[in-house]
Amino acid sequence: MDALGELGAIEGGGCCRLALTDDDRAGRDLVVTWMQDLGLDVRIDAVGNVVAQWGDPDEAPVLIGSHIDTVRTGGRYDGNLGVLGGLEVIESVIESGVTPARPLAVAFFTDEEGSRFAPDMLGSLTYAGGLAVEEAHDIVGIDGARLGDELARIGYLGPHPCPGRPPHAYVELHIEQGPVLEAGGIDIGVVESVQGISWTELTIEGQSNHAGTTPMSLRHDAGYAAAAIATFVRRLAEEMGPPQVATVGSLRVRPDLVNVIASLATMTVDLRNTDESALQEAEQRLAAFFPKVAEAEGVRIRARSLSRFEPVVFDSGVVDLVERTARRLGHSTMRLPSGAGHDAQMLARVCPAGMIFVPSVGGISHNPAEYTAPGDLEAGANVLLQVVLELAT
Amino acid sequence: MDALGELGAIEGGGCCRLALTDDDRAGRDLVVTWMQDLGLDVRIDAVGNVVAQWGDPDEAPVLIGSHIDTVRTGGRYDGNLGVLGGLEVIESVIESGVTPARPLAVAFFTDEEGSRFAPDMLGSLTYAGGLAVEEAHDIVGIDGARLGDELARIGYLGPHPCPGRPPHAYVELHIEQGPVLEAGGIDIGVVESVQGISWTELTIEGQSNHAGTTPMSLRHDAGYAAAAIATFVRRLAEEMGPPQVATVGSLRVRPDLVNVIASLATMTVDLRNTDESALQEAEQRLAAFFPKVAEAEGVRIRARSLSRFEPVVFDSGVVDLVERTARRLGHSTMRLPSGAGHDAQMLARVCPAGMIFVPSVGGISHNPAEYTAPGDLEAGANVLLQVVLELAT
Repeated sequence: MDALGELGAIEGGGCCRLALTDDDRAGRDLVVTWMQDLGLDVRIDAVGNVVAQWGDPDEAPVLIGSHIDTVRTGGRYDGNLGVLGGLEVIESVIESGVTPARPLAVAFFTDEEGSRFAPDMLGSLTYAGGLAVEEAHDIVGIDGARLGDELARIGYLGPHPCPGRPPHAYVELHIEQGPVLEAGGIDIGVVESVQGISWTELTIEGQSNHAGTTPMSLRHDAGYAAAAIATFVRRLAEEMGPPQVATVGSLRVRPDLVNVIASLATMTVDLRNTDESALQEAEQRLAAFFPKVAEAEGVRIRARSLSRFEPVVFDSGVVDLVERTARRLGHSTMRLPSGAGHDAQMLARVCPAGMIFVPSVGGISHNPAEYTAPGDLEAGANVLLQVVLELAT
Repeated sequence: MDALGELGAIEGGGCCRLALTDDDRAGRDLVVTWMQDLGLDVRIDAVGNVVAQWGDPDEAPVLIGSHIDTVRTGGRYDGNLGVLGGLEVIESVIESGVTPARPLAVAFFTDEEGSRFAPDMLGSLTYAGGLAVEEAHDIVGIDGARLGDELARIGYLGPHPCPGRPPHAYVELHIEQGPVLEAGGIDIGVVESVQGISWTELTIEGQSNHAGTTPMSLRHDAGYAAAAIATFVRRLAEEMGPPQVATVGSLRVRPDLVNVIASLATMTVDLRNTDESALQEAEQRLAAFFPKVAEAEGVRIRARSLSRFEPVVFDSGVVDLVERTARRLGHSTMRLPSGAGHDAQMLARVCPAGMIFVPSVGGISHNPAEYTAPGDLEAGANVLLQVVLELAT
C-alpha cells in the first residue's frame, strides 16, 4: 500500500490519482504487474475495469474488488485496501496449496470516486449493465477530457466485453471512512446496506456589474444566490436530522473578482440517505428552494442530475457470513450502513455481494490524513480470506 | 475607442486587459503611439504610469487622466474614455492654434481596477505618494506574478520618478457606472465625492472529509463557512441601507469536488460607503461575525485588508467649474458621489481635482454590455475641453 501510495503522492502522505490521469495509469500499471507476478489471467474491459482471475478462466469466480483511483486530496487506503487485500488473499491461498472449488479473482473498477468523471462508481456501474459503454465513453470530465479518449490515451481501453460476466459472489474490503467503528471500539464493520446518493449540478446565471455603483436592490448576483443555496443545503440536513447528510463540495463564481458582481456560479449538491423516501423528500425540498432564490435575486438557475443511486441492501447470506466469520476469528463486530457509495453496490445488481469495513482513525477520509492501523488492515484481510474461501468452496 | 477595444476583445463586445498582461501591453503601446503622433513628451515612471505633456516640460500641467486596464470581463468605456477624451482635448487645442498659459498633459495610471494586483488605483496611489515604489513592485497578483517583474517584462518599468510632480490641477472624465444619470435623464454628472472602499480577503481553514460518511455535527466545512459569511454580507448591506453596498465577488473552495467537504475557502468582501463612520460600522459588524462562524463550524478564519480608502471630497473650485461649464454648454447636470473608486481621488491628495460623469446605459459596467451613447461621450469631452482650458488659462 505504501508503494502504491507513492504514485501521485501529495503533501501530508496522501494521494492524487484522479481517474485515467497519468498518475492513475502509473498506479494501474503497478497493480497489473503484481497481478501478473501471481500468474493471474488479467483482462481489461471496454471501460478500463481490470479483472485478474486465478483458476478456470471459463467459470464464474468469487470476485474481490474495489478501486485504485482517488479524489484530488485523497489518502492511501480508500479503495486501494480492497484491491491489494484481494491480491494478498489470492497469494495466501496459492501459497497454502489449497485449491478451492471455484476460481478466485480480484478486480479494480474505473472511476469509482467520480471526482473527474460523473457519475461515481462508473466502472462497476457499466460492468453490472447499468450504463452503456458508448455512453460511458462520451462522458466529459471536469477538465473537458472525454472518458473514451482518456482510456485510449493511457492504454486501458481493453478488448474484453462490458457488461462483464456476473461473478459467483462479490466481496469488498474497505475502510469505514466514518467515525462509528473507532468510536465504539469495534474491529470489523458488517455492512448491511449503502446510502442512496443524489448529486445535482447547478448553474446560476446573473448579471456582472460594478460592486461599487450598483445599488443592492438592482443586483442579480449569481454568487449570492449560490451562497444562499449552500446555506439552505446545510439547514435542510439539520432539519431532517441523521442519517440525512448534505454537502456543497464544489462552488465556483465568474468572473471571480473582488469588485465585480458574479455573473455566473456553478455548484454541486450531494444528498445522501439510507432511506429512499427520505432522500426523495430532501431532493424535493431542495428543488422547491431554487425558484424562490431565482425570483428574489433575478437570476436563472438550471439543475442537472449528475448521479442518482437508490439505497442498496446487501445479500443476507453474505452479510451473515461476514459477521459469523469475523466473530469466529475473535473480532468484535457491528452491523452498519455505508455512508459512502461503493463498487459493491453495483455488483449487488448481478450477484450476492457484501462488504467488510475496518475502522478509520478520526473518521477521516478523502484527506491525506486518512489512516487505518496495520492491525486493523490485517484483521480485515483475514476476514476477507475466510469469507472468500467459504464462498468458493 | 473601438480600435483600443479590439485589443483584448472578448465575446459580447467587451475587453479583458488585466493590468500588465500582454493585452494591457498592446493597449499601452497603441495609446503611446497616439501620444507620440500628437508630438507629446511621453514619460513612463517607475510603476508604469504614462504621462504625455504638451507645452513647457518643466512646468506643472493641467493633467487629464484615467486608466486603460480593465477587469476580466470589462467593457470599452471604463477608464478608456478619460484617457482618449484627454487626447482628443489636447488634439483639439493644438488644432485650434490657441496656446494656454499652462501646459496640458494626459496620463494613464497603472492597475486602476486592482483586478490583478491589489490595491486598486495602485498606479495613481503611488504617483500621489501613498505607496512606496518598492512596496508596489513586491505586490503579488492573483496569478502569482510579481508586479515589478511584470512591469519589466512588458517594457513599462520606466525611468521617471514616482511619486510624480503634483499637477496644477487634475480632471477625469468617466462613465458613471451606475444607473442614476440615465434614470434622471441627466446629461452630465458633477462628481462631488468618492465612496470610501474597504476590501478584505478571507482565508477559511476547515477539514476535508467524505461527504457521505461524515455526520453533519462533526463537520468543519470551510465552504459552508464561506457561504454563511457571503449571506451575512448581503444582510449587512440590506440592514444598513443605501448608500452602503457590500459584495462577495471572489469565492473559491478547495479541493472543489462534489463528494469532499471543503478544507479551504478563500473569498473577498468589498464594502463601500460615502460616510466614513458608516463604513467603519460595516467593517466592525463584519469582523464581529467571523468568530461566531469560526466557533460554530470549528474552522479558522483569517482576515487581511487588501485595500482601504476613506471617502474623498473633491475641490469645490473644480466641482463648481464642472457644473458651471456643463450648464453653459446647455447640458442638464446633477451633483452626485461616485460609487466606484477613481484615480482622481488619489490625485486629489496632491492638487485640486474633479470629475465629469456621463451616463451608463442600464447602469451596467464591468461587463461587456457596458455602453454610453456617442452623443453623451461627445458632451462629456466638450465639458472636459472647456474645463481644462479654463484651468490652464
